[in-house]
Amino acid sequence: MIVVMRPKAPLQSINEVVGRIEKQGFRANISGGDQRTVIGVIGTSFYAEFADMLAAIPNVEAVIPVTRKYKLASREFNPVDTVIRVGDVTFGGSEVVVMAGPCSVENERQIIETAYAVRASGAKVLRGGAFKPRTSPYMFRGLAEEGLKLLAKAREETGLPVITEVMTTADVPLVAHYSDILQIGARNMQNYQLLEECGRSGRPVLLKRGLSATIEEWLLSAEYILNQGNWQVMLCERGIRSYDPMTRNCFDLTAVPLVKRLSHLPIIADPSHATGKWYLVEPMAMASVAAGADGLIIEVHPNPDHALSDGPQSLTFDNFAKMMAHLPHIAEAVGRRIGLHAYA
Amino acid sequence: MIVVMRPKAPLQSINEVVGRIEKQGFRANISGGDQRTVIGVIGTSFYAEFADMLAAIPNVEAVIPVTRKYKLASREFNPVDTVIRVGDVTFGGSEVVVMAGPCSVENERQIIETAYAVRASGAKVLRGGAFKPRTSPYMFRGLAEEGLKLLAKAREETGLPVITEVMTTADVPLVAHYSDILQIGARNMQNYQLLEECGRSGRPVLLKRGLSATIEEWLLSAEYILNQGNWQVMLCERGIRSYDPMTRNCFDLTAVPLVKRLSHLPIIADPSHATGKWYLVEPMAMASVAAGADGLIIEVHPNPDHALSDGPQSLTFDNFAKMMAHLPHIAEAVGRRIGLHAYA
Amino acid sequence: MIVVMRPKAPLQSINEVVGRIEKQGFRANISGGDQRTVIGVIGTSFYAEFADMLAAIPNVEAVIPVTRKYKLASREFNPVDTVIRVGDVTFGGSEVVVMAGPCSVENERQIIETAYAVRASGAKVLRGGAFKPRTSPYMFRGLAEEGLKLLAKAREETGLPVITEVMTTADVPLVAHYSDILQIGARNMQNYQLLEECGRSGRPVLLKRGLSATIEEWLLSAEYILNQGNWQVMLCERGIRSYDPMTRNCFDLTAVPLVKRLSHLPIIADPSHATGKWYLVEPMAMASVAAGADGLIIEVHPNPDHALSDGPQSLTFDNFAKMMAHLPHIAEAVGRRIGLHAYA
Amino acid sequence: MIVVMRPKAPLQSINEVVGRIEKQGFRANISGGDQRTVIGVIGTSFYAEFADMLAAIPNVEAVIPVTRKYKLASREFNPVDTVIRVGDVTFGGSEVVVMAGPCSVENERQIIETAYAVRASGAKVLRGGAFKPRTSPYMFRGLAEEGLKLLAKAREETGLPVITEVMTTADVPLVAHYSDILQIGARNMQNYQLLEECGRSGRPVLLKRGLSATIEEWLLSAEYILNQGNWQVMLCERGIRSYDPMTRNCFDLTAVPLVKRLSHLPIIADPSHATGKWYLVEPMAMASVAAGADGLIIEVHPNPDHALSDGPQSLTFDNFAKMMAHLPHIAEAVGRRIGLHAYA
Repeated sequence: MIVVMRPKAPLQSINEVVGRIEKQGFRANISGGDQRTVIGVIGTSFYAEFADMLAAIPNVEAVIPVTRKYKLASREFNPVDTVIRVGDVTFGGSEVVVMAGPCSVENERQIIETAYAVRASGAKVLRGGAFKPRTSPYMFRGLAEEGLKLLAKAREETGLPVITEVMTTADVPLVAHYSDILQIGARNMQNYQLLEECGRSGRPVLLKRGLSATIEEWLLSAEYILNQGNWQVMLCERGIRSYDPMTRNCFDLTAVPLVKRLSHLPIIADPSHATGKWYLVEPMAMASVAAGADGLIIEVHPNPDHALSDGPQSLTFDNFAKMMAHLPHIAEAVGRRIGLHAYA
Repeated sequence: MIVVMRPKAPLQSINEVVGRIEKQGFRANISGGDQRTVIGVIGTSFYAEFADMLAAIPNVEAVIPVTRKYKLASREFNPVDTVIRVGDVTFGGSEVVVMAGPCSVENERQIIETAYAVRASGAKVLRGGAFKPRTSPYMFRGLAEEGLKLLAKAREETGLPVITEVMTTADVPLVAHYSDILQIGARNMQNYQLLEECGRSGRPVLLKRGLSATIEEWLLSAEYILNQGNWQVMLCERGIRSYDPMTRNCFDLTAVPLVKRLSHLPIIADPSHATGKWYLVEPMAMASVAAGADGLIIEVHPNPDHALSDGPQSLTFDNFAKMMAHLPHIAEAVGRRIGLHAYA
Repeated sequence: MIVVMRPKAPLQSINEVVGRIEKQGFRANISGGDQRTVIGVIGTSFYAEFADMLAAIPNVEAVIPVTRKYKLASREFNPVDTVIRVGDVTFGGSEVVVMAGPCSVENERQIIETAYAVRASGAKVLRGGAFKPRTSPYMFRGLAEEGLKLLAKAREETGLPVITEVMTTADVPLVAHYSDILQIGARNMQNYQLLEECGRSGRPVLLKRGLSATIEEWLLSAEYILNQGNWQVMLCERGIRSYDPMTRNCFDLTAVPLVKRLSHLPIIADPSHATGKWYLVEPMAMASVAAGADGLIIEVHPNPDHALSDGPQSLTFDNFAKMMAHLPHIAEAVGRRIGLHAYA
Repeated sequence: MIVVMRPKAPLQSINEVVGRIEKQGFRANISGGDQRTVIGVIGTSFYAEFADMLAAIPNVEAVIPVTRKYKLASREFNPVDTVIRVGDVTFGGSEVVVMAGPCSVENERQIIETAYAVRASGAKVLRGGAFKPRTSPYMFRGLAEEGLKLLAKAREETGLPVITEVMTTADVPLVAHYSDILQIGARNMQNYQLLEECGRSGRPVLLKRGLSATIEEWLLSAEYILNQGNWQVMLCERGIRSYDPMTRNCFDLTAVPLVKRLSHLPIIADPSHATGKWYLVEPMAMASVAAGADGLIIEVHPNPDHALSDGPQSLTFDNFAKMMAHLPHIAEAVGRRIGLHAYA
C-alpha cells in the first residue's frame, strides 16, 4: 500500500502517517520527491480497513493498494487451473462445455423437448430458470419449486445435469436439492449472504458478473464463496451496462483472457444476455471460444416468440443446431473440443 | 407499445404480428410508411411479457414501450406528493430533513457521541450501519444485532429516530424491531425478495439507487415495495458508476428534479457516497438542496481517520456543524427550511 | 511515479527497472514487500513517455503516476483564482455570470430579439452558434460567417459580449474577429491543433468537457491552451455520457467543486446540454450556483418548437425570466451575486 | 417518427402536433390509447430537425425515430458488402487483412525493421503514426512529415501499403500524398470538417470509433465521408470507455457482427488499443476473427520498453509471429484466410 501526500504537506502530517503505520506494526518507507512525499507501507498482515483510515488523515492525497484484495481466487495462490466435475462434465479442462436451455421453465413439454433438442446438438448441461429476477413486479417470475421439479425430470429423462438460479439464502437448500449447479445472477453478485450460503451448500456455483462490476469486485465476490471452503466456483461474463441502446449489454469479452490470467477459476461466456439479440449469439459464441472461454451458456426455446422471458435473445432449436455445427472448428483452432466431438 | 418492422418486411410477418396482437385482445393500428411498417398496440390490460414476445417474431426490428412500466410509483397514479412521518420528522413536506451519523456503528461511545453532535447541529435522524455490505470478505462487516441495540440506545438518549440498512430477508423483522426506517442499499436495489419483505414490514423504507440503475429500474424497484401495500417509500440518489476514478461515484443530481416530476415519492440525496471525499460533501449537499432534494443523508464520524469504514468521505463534527450553518440559506432560497431553523 | 512489480518477479527484472531509472538520471527507491517489490522513481525532470516504457518491461505489473500530469492548469502552480475580464464582465470573481441565447443563430430577428430578452432578465453575455457540429450530415449546420455577423450586430445593439463555437483551426481568425469568447465544443476537447490555435488567438476560451473525458484529461486539454501563453481559459461542465436514456447526458456537477480544488481556472455549468430537457434546466442551474459554479450558459429561444437545433432543451423568454428571478437567492446564499443584482 | 404525448395531454396540444406535421407536408396517424395518445408521422422527405421541433411542443413526452438516421452507410441502401482494394490487398472480401506496425514512427531503422518483420509474419499493410494525438502537451507528438517520408520509404522497400493517421484538415493533402489509407482517430470521429476533407481526398479511409460513440453515431460519421462521394470507408472498433481500470478500454467486439448487419462497410478490429495490454492482444485478435472482423490492426515494436508511445500494448516481433501462426486456424474455421496462407 502506498500513501501519496498532497504537495507541500507539512512534516507533521507525514509524521502522523508514519506513526499510524508503525503503531499498526507495519514499516514505513518514506520517499521524498521534489513535489510530494510518498510513503510505502510494508508488512505482512492483512488489514483491509487500514487504507481508508490512512486516506482520511489530513494532507493525504491518495492511498494506492499494491497487493490484490482477493487471495483464494488469485492465480498466485493457486497457479493450477481449477477443474470442476459435474457428472461426466468437466469445466476448466480441455473441453468447452455448452449449457443450454430456456430462460424460464414454463411447462413440462417445453423443458423436456428443449432438453432433448439441446442434447442432440451437443449441449452437456441443461439450463432453465425456476426463480426469475424481473425488473418489474408485474412480470412472470418463474414456476418456483414446480420449475425445479420439471428440471429434475428433464435430467432424469436426458441425463443432462442441471443449472438454475437461486435468488435468496432461504432457497439455497431447496435449489441445491434439485440442481447440480447453483447460479448466482448478476443482480445478486454482491448479495454477500447469498454468496456465503451458496458457499456452504457444497454445490458447484456459477457466479455471474454484476451489471457494472469491475473484475476485481467480481473476484472478491468469488472470494466470499471460496472462503466458505467451496472451491467449485466458476465465473460467467454476461455483459456489462453500456450507453449504447443497440445491445442489451456490452459484452466485455476481454474479461475471459483477463480472468484466466488473474485467477485459476473456470470462466464461462453468456452471449445471450450479453447481446440480447438472437442473431448476435452465434458470432459472439464463436468469439468467446476463440478468446479462451471454458464454456458457454446459451438460451434456447422451442418458440422464442411465445417465451415468457428473453424471447428476443433465444435461439430456436434450428439456430442452436447450426451454431453447434460451427463451434467445434473454433474449438479445434484453439486446441480444445466442444459438443458432440467430445464423445469421439 | 409500438412494433417497428424491419424495412421491406414481408406482408406475412406483418400479418403475424397483427394476429398475435388481436389474439391477445388488443387492437392493432397499422401505419405503413415508405420505408417500414409501424404497428401500434392499443388496449387496456397490462401484460408485461408481450413486448418481448412480439420482439421475437421474425422481421420485427424493435418493440418500443409507450406507457410507463411502473404504476403505483408514478405521479400520474398519485399526483400529490407523498409525505412520510417518522416521529416528529416529516419527509416530503416543506422541511429538508438531514440524517447523519457514522457509516458503521463501532461502539457505544462513538455512536452516542455522534448522535449528540449531529443533533446539536440540526440533524433530525441518526444513521449508522449494523449490517455492512463489504466488497471484500476480509473487511469489517458491522456489529450486527449489537449495533442495532446501540442505535436504539442512542435514540433513547437523544430522541433522534434511527435509520439503518437491512441486507437480507431473514433480518427484516430484527432490523424493523430496532430501527425507525429500513434502508435498502445500492447493491440490493434489485434484490426483489428483500424489497417485498421490507414492503411487508410496515416500516418506512429508504431505497438507494443501484450502482448503475436507470431511473426507470429504480422506480420499478420501488414498485415492488409499494405493491405490498407499503406507501412509505423514499428514494435515495447516492451516485452511479462512472469511468472517472477521481470520485467514488458520479453524483447524478439531475435525478432529484426528474424523480420529483415522474413520481410522488420523496427523494433524498447522499453526497457522502456519491462523491467519496469529505471536502466535496458540503458543496454537493448545498447543490442537492438547491435542486429540490427532500432530505440529505450524511456520514459523520468523531475521528474519520480511525473509522472502520468510509473514513475518507466522513465529516468531522466541526465540518458537519459548518455545513449545517450554511445549508439553511440555500433551503430558504428555495422556499424550504432545514436543520435547527425548523424549530423556530 | 511508482513501479509495481509482479509477485515473485525475478531479481533480474527488478534490476532492469532500476537500471532504466538510473540511466534516465532519476533515483530508484526500492521497497521489497512480502508479496512484491515496489520501486519509487524520484527526480525532477518531466518525461511523460517514461511511464509507458517502464510499464512495458517484463514482470512490471503497473506504473502508477504520483504527480499530476498537468502543470499550468493546477492550483499548485497558481494558487490564486484566475479572473478573466470580457468588457464589463468578470469570470472567476464574486459574480456568477449568466451567458444565454439560442443554440444556433437562425436569422437577424431571432438573435436580436433573444439578445434583448436575455439582457432584460440579467444575462451578461450572448451565446449563439454560427458553426454547429451535428451528429448527422443532413442537419442544419449553422449560418457560418453570416451567423457571426448577426452576433456582432446583436452585440452592437445590446452591448452584450458574444460567445460562439469555433470548430476548426482554419476558422479561428474569423471567429476571433467577431466573437469575444471562443468556445471549444465537447466533440473537439481533444482536437489538439484547435486547442493550440485558440491558445494563439489571444481570445478568452471556454473549453467544454468531452463527452466521456476524465477531469484529468480535461485539465490536460486546458494545458494545451495555457501552454501557448493564453491564460484566459474557462472550463465548462456540460454533462457526460451515461447509460440512462432519460436525460441527454449525465450532469457531473461534482466536477465544479473538484475543478475549483484542482485548478485556478473559472468553471461554468451548462445545464441545458447536461440535461437536454427544458424543465430540468432551472433546478440544475440552481444546483450549479449552489455548488460553486462561476457562471452558467443557458439555451434560450423565442420559439423552442421552431428552433433549428436543441429546441427540447431551450427555455422560452418567460421561463428564462423566471429562472433569473430565482437564481439571485441561491447566489446570495453562497456569498455571490448574479444577474441584474450585479448592477446594484 | 412517432410522437408520444404526455398522459392526459389536452386535445389542443394534440391538434398542435398534428397541425405541425401536416403543415410540413407529412401525414399524421393518430392512435388514442387509454393512457396516452401516440401520433405517427408518415411521409417521404428527410427533415432531420423536425423531431426536435416536435419534441419541444408542450405536452409532448417523447419523439421516437423509426427510420435510421444514416442512409448511404446502411445495408438497406447497399445490400452488397463494400470491397476496398489497396494495391494487392482487399478489405471486405474473403481475406482477413492484418495491418501492423509501431504506434509512432520513431526513426528509419525502427520503421524499416518493423516493416520487414511484420511482412515476414503475414501482415499486408504497415501502420505507423507520424502525427500523434496525445492527451498531454508534454508528450511525443510524432515526427510529422519526416515520419510520413519514412513510411513511404518502408513501403518502397517492402512493398507494403501504408496506413497513418491524419489529425487536421490542413494536413489531409500531405498525408494523402504519402499514405495509402487515411486513418481518422477516435478523438476525431466527430470532427466533421476532417471527415469531409478525407471524403474529398479520394483515399480509402479507416474511421475509428469514438471513445464513447454509439454505433449509430459512428455510422453517421461514416455518412459524412460517404456523402462526399468517397465509398472507400472502413470502420474500426478500438474499444470504448469503461469504468474498469483494468483494461485501457472496453473492447466492444459485438460491434463487429452488428456493423456487418447494419452496414455494407468493412469492419476492422484493433485489439491493441481496445485492451491496452500486450498479453491480451492475441486472444482478442483470435476472438475478433471468430466474430467476423474483416481485418486487424496491431501495434508491433522492436523494443516495446523503449517505445515513445503505447509500449505496454505493443507486441514484440516474436509475439507477433506467434499470433500470426495461430490466427489462420481461426480464419479457416469461419471460412476465411489470413496472413501468409493467403498466398497459398
